[in-house]
Amino acid sequence: MSVVEQARRARVAAEALALATRTTKDAALHAMADALVARTPEILAANATDLAAGREAGLSAAVLDRLALDAERVAGIADALRQMAALPDPVGEVVRGSTLPNGLELRQIRVPFGVVGIIYEARPNVTVDAAGICLKSGNAALLRGSSSAANSNSALVAVLRDAVAGAGLPPDAVQLLDATSRDSVKELMRARGLVDVLIPRGGASLIRTVVEESTVPVIETGVGNCHVYVDAAADVSMAVAITLNAKTQRLSTCNTAESLLVHAAVAETFLPPMLAAFAEAGVTVHGDERVVAHSAAVLPVTEEDFATEYLAAEISVAVVDSLDAAVAHIRRYGTGHTEAIVTDSTGAAREFVARVDAAAVMVNASTRFTDGGEFGFGAEIGISTQKLHARGPMGLPELTSTKYVVTGDGHLRG
Amino acid sequence: MSVVEQARRARVAAEALALATRTTKDAALHAMADALVARTPEILAANATDLAAGREAGLSAAVLDRLALDAERVAGIADALRQMAALPDPVGEVVRGSTLPNGLELRQIRVPFGVVGIIYEARPNVTVDAAGICLKSGNAALLRGSSSAANSNSALVAVLRDAVAGAGLPPDAVQLLDATSRDSVKELMRARGLVDVLIPRGGASLIRTVVEESTVPVIETGVGNCHVYVDAAADVSMAVAITLNAKTQRLSTCNTAESLLVHAAVAETFLPPMLAAFAEAGVTVHGDERVVAHSAAVLPVTEEDFATEYLAAEISVAVVDSLDAAVAHIRRYGTGHTEAIVTDSTGAAREFVARVDAAAVMVNASTRFTDGGEFGFGAEIGISTQKLHARGPMGLPELTSTKYVVTGDGHLRG
Repeated sequence: MSVVEQARRARVAAEALALATRTTKDAALHAMADALVARTPEILAANATDLAAGREAGLSAAVLDRLALDAERVAGIADALRQMAALPDPVGEVVRGSTLPNGLELRQIRVPFGVVGIIYEARPNVTVDAAGICLKSGNAALLRGSSSAANSNSALVAVLRDAVAGAGLPPDAVQLLDATSRDSVKELMRARGLVDVLIPRGGASLIRTVVEESTVPVIETGVGNCHVYVDAAADVSMAVAITLNAKTQRLSTCNTAESLLVHAAVAETFLPPMLAAFAEAGVTVHGDERVVAHSAAVLPVTEEDFATEYLAAEISVAVVDSLDAAVAHIRRYGTGHTEAIVTDSTGAAREFVARVDAAAVMVNASTRFTDGGEFGFGAEIGISTQKLHARGPMGLPELTSTKYVVTGDGHLRG
Repeated sequence: MSVVEQARRARVAAEALALATRTTKDAALHAMADALVARTPEILAANATDLAAGREAGLSAAVLDRLALDAERVAGIADALRQMAALPDPVGEVVRGSTLPNGLELRQIRVPFGVVGIIYEARPNVTVDAAGICLKSGNAALLRGSSSAANSNSALVAVLRDAVAGAGLPPDAVQLLDATSRDSVKELMRARGLVDVLIPRGGASLIRTVVEESTVPVIETGVGNCHVYVDAAADVSMAVAITLNAKTQRLSTCNTAESLLVHAAVAETFLPPMLAAFAEAGVTVHGDERVVAHSAAVLPVTEEDFATEYLAAEISVAVVDSLDAAVAHIRRYGTGHTEAIVTDSTGAAREFVARVDAAAVMVNASTRFTDGGEFGFGAEIGISTQKLHARGPMGLPELTSTKYVVTGDGHLRG
């Protein structure tokens, strides 16, 4: 079936979904969770096919691990759906309301987008997560996963569709696009009018392609060249701990720190314990002259390093002469994801927060906290690094639009 | 100067604007208003040049009237700036805030977009309005007006820039792009990274071009193929009054009704007085067979009529057999702007509101109320017909993004 035909079916399903009550949607989420657990054997069989093909194709152990499912992982994926059912329904929330001077009653109400397209890579859990979040927010989902997970995703979506239908909602609320064809991404990007929003989740090049070529409105996610700035007034041991956590607590996430800026006034006291901590944690350091001067293990930093999202045990480090220089560096190399300052100065914190242009600014906290789960959203479809519509972690409300409802009694405009 | 160079200067100006207090911004708005009044003669001289060129080029009397300025109109434009100064500052508003279980303090705060590009036609008052709304919301404005108003806009922007500079803000907060070059629109659409959002205001073809070709995020505005649906349970005289108001109160606006759907059950009682009212108001009616049967003056309606935003004294009319058929018709031909139902039935109103997918749904009120001024927003930059970011009339908050500020005390992620 063509993507356009799938999108048309999604539109029809979306009409019913938009009218579904929370009770019905939550029942569907529970049915989806139960079905995943009940039909675990067929899911694992499909996953085994993907894993065998992946090994054949020489995928790395890390990628194979992310692809792999077992009964415990499937149970975890099912639990995430049950947790979504417990979250409030964003649809129908009155965002703003008043009675106008002429007596008209104005209400701005959350409504679903309609049809949401999601392009993502590797992990099969995203398939279920995205389907669940879309269903809870009243949206039909068009899922375009990775070809390496094609069999797993097919099995998962077959189970989900049966459960959705069993709960009295249209199965076309959840559809998988052909992952083996590059054309399916192209068709999805051009399906303006049928698809309301497209969310690419994945590497920088995928996101750039979608942003540049899509006529469907896009929410950009995920690229994070995040900085930690250690201010002149920083508590040195706190700064070491936060930087180490931001860099190493998990290497491959978009909120991981990739660059460290150190105020010259604390460089002498801060850099020695910091570089020692990096060495102990196995982090390769690319530093400017003033950093190199502290350790033979530091590699000379390049322009490219400053612009790189390593997603690995590497970090670029520069000494700056002022908060101003730190802000300028971040403005030049940052991707607008998460920037952190470590300081005891309220003035420095206030200035950094005001001047840094990013989805999230951390004061004396690790960059790793920019996360829908950490923020208490309960569900997350990605982290937006754009300014339009949603910025930062996107939960259920970010998957909705609004509608003004204006009620009168024969009101005419004079 | 190239558009890219102007956009670069706008970015620099935007950094200062984002930090400006409400006091400073409001002082600038008052200075802009005062300067417009004080320098009215040079503005009118420039406007006279445009008007002469317009007459030479054979512009219609209506277009020339929209282009024309006099002392009274300039005073009115200045007053609009003073009214903006009186509105609350959207920047800095805490949209959401809480203390997370681990003690992190989370706040989501409104921040300006940065640089806003606006493409518009004809009327010089839009130049001042857009500059004022952008400045109040902390954004630098790149204004691309119509070539027919080029001299007027140049004079207005020169006055505004002097006033902005006099108030201690960077004059590059307000810049006019070359209106004589088509390339300036193209360059603006490709200035991703320098321009944060693009708002096209004008005809359907301009908006379509921008939506399809821009890599800068776009907020779609203004195309309105608005319907009035007269339900089986409608009060007939209210329905006639609302439809007449929606169609004729002002012909050229996007919230003007362009199509009327009549439930068959009331057609016999409603159509005679309605058609008489249209005839008296000089409105040409394009109707289906069941409408034509009522009057020799009704022209046969075509598919194209149903899809047309007349912006003139014309309307398409169809008799439908159910609310369901009305919703299906609107889904097919509507542009998601404003749809109205006239009914005394709470059930019908509830169903229409829930099922019609539009920025605004009116119950027993004229479509003409979809307007920032009528909604009490105090300022309006346009009416969004898209679902992302803003939907319906856009006031000051719709010209902002948000930023999460997370404050801790050495918080690490575990």
